Amino acid sequence: MIPPGLTASVFSQALAELRRIVGDEWVFTGEDVELYRDAYSPLWGEPDERLASAAVAPERVEQVQRIVRVANAYRLPLYTISTGRNLAYGGSAPVYSGSVVLDLKRMNRILEVSEPNAYALVEPGVSYFDLYRYIRERGLKLWIDTPDPGWGSPVGNALDHGAGYTPLPFRDHLDAHCGMEVVLADGEIVRTGMGALPTARTWQQFRYGIGPFMDGIFSQSNFGIVTKMGFWLYPQPEAFRAGTVKAVKHDDIIPFVEILASLMYSGTVNCHLGISSPVFNGPADAAFDALIATLDGGSAAEWDRYAAAHGKHFWETELHFYGPAKVIEAQWSHVQERFAAIPGIAFADGVSYRFPLTDEQISRVGDRVSLGIPSLGIYAGLLPQRGEPPSTGHMDFSPVLPMTGKAILEAHKVFTRTLREGDIEPKYGIVQSFHWRSFILFYGFPVTHDVETNKKIRATYQKMIRVAADHGWGVYRTHAAFMDSAVSTYSYNDHALHRLHERLKDALDPNGILAAGRYGIWPRHLRQDKPRRGQP
Amino acid sequence: MIPPGLTASVFSQALAELRRIVGDEWVFTGEDVELYRDAYSPLWGEPDERLASAAVAPERVEQVQRIVRVANAYRLPLYTISTGRNLAYGGSAPVYSGSVVLDLKRMNRILEVSEPNAYALVEPGVSYFDLYRYIRERGLKLWIDTPDPGWGSPVGNALDHGAGYTPLPFRDHLDAHCGMEVVLADGEIVRTGMGALPTARTWQQFRYGIGPFMDGIFSQSNFGIVTKMGFWLYPQPEAFRAGTVKAVKHDDIIPFVEILASLMYSGTVNCHLGISSPVFNGPADAAFDALIATLDGGSAAEWDRYAAAHGKHFWETELHFYGPAKVIEAQWSHVQERFAAIPGIAFADGVSYRFPLTDEQISRVGDRVSLGIPSLGIYAGLLPQRGEPPSTGHMDFSPVLPMTGKAILEAHKVFTRTLREGDIEPKYGIVQSFHWRSFILFYGFPVTHDVETNKKIRATYQKMIRVAADHGWGVYRTHAAFMDSAVSTYSYNDHALHRLHERLKDALDPNGILAAGRYGIWPRHLRQDKPRRGQP
Repeated sequence: MIPPGLTASVFSQALAELRRIVGDEWVFTGEDVELYRDAYSPLWGEPDERLASAAVAPERVEQVQRIVRVANAYRLPLYTISTGRNLAYGGSAPVYSGSVVLDLKRMNRILEVSEPNAYALVEPGVSYFDLYRYIRERGLKLWIDTPDPGWGSPVGNALDHGAGYTPLPFRDHLDAHCGMEVVLADGEIVRTGMGALPTARTWQQFRYGIGPFMDGIFSQSNFGIVTKMGFWLYPQPEAFRAGTVKAVKHDDIIPFVEILASLMYSGTVNCHLGISSPVFNGPADAAFDALIATLDGGSAAEWDRYAAAHGKHFWETELHFYGPAKVIEAQWSHVQERFAAIPGIAFADGVSYRFPLTDEQISRVGDRVSLGIPSLGIYAGLLPQRGEPPSTGHMDFSPVLPMTGKAILEAHKVFTRTLREGDIEPKYGIVQSFHWRSFILFYGFPVTHDVETNKKIRATYQKMIRVAADHGWGVYRTHAAFMDSAVSTYSYNDHALHRLHERLKDALDPNGILAAGRYGIWPRHLRQDKPRRGQP
Repeated sequence: MIPPGLTASVFSQALAELRRIVGDEWVFTGEDVELYRDAYSPLWGEPDERLASAAVAPERVEQVQRIVRVANAYRLPLYTISTGRNLAYGGSAPVYSGSVVLDLKRMNRILEVSEPNAYALVEPGVSYFDLYRYIRERGLKLWIDTPDPGWGSPVGNALDHGAGYTPLPFRDHLDAHCGMEVVLADGEIVRTGMGALPTARTWQQFRYGIGPFMDGIFSQSNFGIVTKMGFWLYPQPEAFRAGTVKAVKHDDIIPFVEILASLMYSGTVNCHLGISSPVFNGPADAAFDALIATLDGGSAAEWDRYAAAHGKHFWETELHFYGPAKVIEAQWSHVQERFAAIPGIAFADGVSYRFPLTDEQISRVGDRVSLGIPSLGIYAGLLPQRGEPPSTGHMDFSPVLPMTGKAILEAHKVFTRTLREGDIEPKYGIVQSFHWRSFILFYGFPVTHDVETNKKIRATYQKMIRVAADHGWGVYRTHAAFMDSAVSTYSYNDHALHRLHERLKDALDPNGILAAGRYGIWPRHLRQDKPRRGQP
């Protein structure tokens, strides 16, 4: 494959220049490029599948600077990846077919970890496993926060607005970052925040620096290449304990979430949590299917009868508490007092730990990510249960919901109906709390290597985006194939925010060499080709 | 005064256009413009004092849009203020003399306050007092966070990176915001985050939306006019308690801050705090002056002898705990256990409250801002103690320090020496914790209405900025008169970050009509006039 707009000979010259910068062995062409295919692509094997033309893997920031200068000279489209593990969101494949993947996996230095000031400064090729091992080997009393799974990059994940499982602010990875180094499209290096002060002592401790706070524009975008990034780490807590809260009835979700939200907004509950329903998320039977199939998807009274007949309670959430043992006991006790306002509410104590754990103890921990321990367990556990049709991968469909029970009930009904209409097994989504003030309702969407099946799946995914937007629930992140669609729903004032993104793109990357199409931002010369706005 | 570059007749035409938009009574010229002088200007009465040429006060966002279109047509420089109370940082006067102040005080609507989801959406003219009264009158179980004093604007303060006194994230006002509406220089309205979704239900609950997170660029800058802004509010806690920790010796500051930082990074301590020294911040005597005057500003042993002779302990901090009564008791107990590692450490219980408070109880609260209650008490209390020379106002000098005792000791010595060299009374700064991971060392710098005195003060302030930067301590905010100087110290890679700001300025405000010079960002046509970089 040759990048659009380039001839074979010009492309060949450009690659030769890249080889001079990084060495022959770090420019990949031919079948090596296969490794950059997105195994979870919903466009697998179709003409629209997003494929790389080549890849280049620099080791140092100076090489990144030289590469972007070559890209400007040749109008060579680049697509930056960190560890390239962004599965479900595009993996290591570009958004714009024919791009050369700028693979930063070799830039994998852990530049600093401060134990007293609890931060890390890392390059994009560092993985969660790398950072975890570094800390554990040295016996530092620090935790990282890791998403599922742990082979990804703290830098890449934060820039994609990814999240994990320990307390806030740590699990909101962009929110827990502090300071960036960015190579702009013209090859200039910028350091943000206090990094702009040549002698700075607080680059990883104070984010704003002076003047406009810039960091956010380099996330979910293509305005620069982040080459270093700082993260706040969590000082190892003294203890952990889990406790489950169970509500009996369908409509209990209203006070359940109101109490929970109040506890979360005030910081008494500060953990990741999932709100699941033993009824909705459990196995279906004929009575279940019959209820779902009614016009309104089942009334509260009908569902309560169903739950009672099956001996199930309706809602539950497992809460995690981290901190001094006596503090978390007091928190759990307070939480139970608050929830006691709901008739029939029940509580169950869960696991508890004192830290540090030995290797042997860790080997017996089931839910490692909640302790900031990277894992690939997700691949052995949840993901194989991908339902029908049998899938080779998945995408996340993840609309943002307000923290209200009403929204959860409404979203369950609306999305279940849409999935059924699309002939996709109407699994219920799981409400999760990754961010400060909102829920994300996650649906694992199957993808396959079968063209016809994928077409059907894509049509439903597309419809889900539209239905979500119609209800005021935007998605916070999406697979490369749906970025234009998702962004097009954020259309206030004739897509004014998107047009602002385009103005920044033109100002910062006038030749449009960086990650064309990422989160719907196309360089000027490609805008006529993109799907028209408002037509997801 | 006429804006530079405009003739009297063109200016007069432009004002006539503004009158057609807002009505005659809302365009201010002549002596009315005096009200926009910065009473705390260190340039008071000098040719360089920053003065407005006129002011215009729109009531609605549509009027703001029309005003910026007129400004573009006439190349009329505008300077936006919210409530105009940014005293110590420039007040309501423009950075660029001759600008027309765009005064948003009439845009003072509280658009929404959600009790269950604990947020507010407000216009720029709303003050902390307004928002507090609104909530209190309705008996909503919500707290705001307010800085000293309470007549400022939540919008303006957050955009200036201001801070308050309740737990994080609330007291970091930019960090506690969620969602903006911005009028760009061309009159387009943009809503950020979920506000870009026309039907959004989470504009004030999820910040990122999709794509690049833009909000930060509108803070400490001049890229747009923020016309609406959301803020997370703190659900009224059950209880509050204060406790003081006292360390005896000079060098105790090292473990003292190490323990404190660990507690803060992990969230067990989450309050604003000041670290003061009864020795350094107390009254001086001859022995004190003699020690200060030594080459190294006094050794630890000498200071310990001095403190012992005066019956003083060396360091103390008052901690505040907010939350369920049993949780905060456990936190205070844990804190005491941790600090017990320092020999001689002492603890004292402080005030405690249960909420809500009655009006009568509130009238007896000394430290209102710590309970999120707006106040003007700062003017009756701290500020009159402005020292020598007698001052009519003050500026804040506020470098960012890492959370280490070493940095505090070093900064005290360095800045005391610089102040003495400038013949300004060497009051010690107070270390304060407004942000997540760093301290700010505050010095109240006197300003007067006497030209010669102000010259001396300015020279020392200028020198303090340079000395701070040389030690890696950048200032996070500064008076309008020193923005160029402060920004010029953030010079990594030949001022690459600042040049990035300028590129954004050119892209978003090509005619340079918005707040020229704010935080060192000048439009292209004025860049040749500004102080050269690197020469603060």
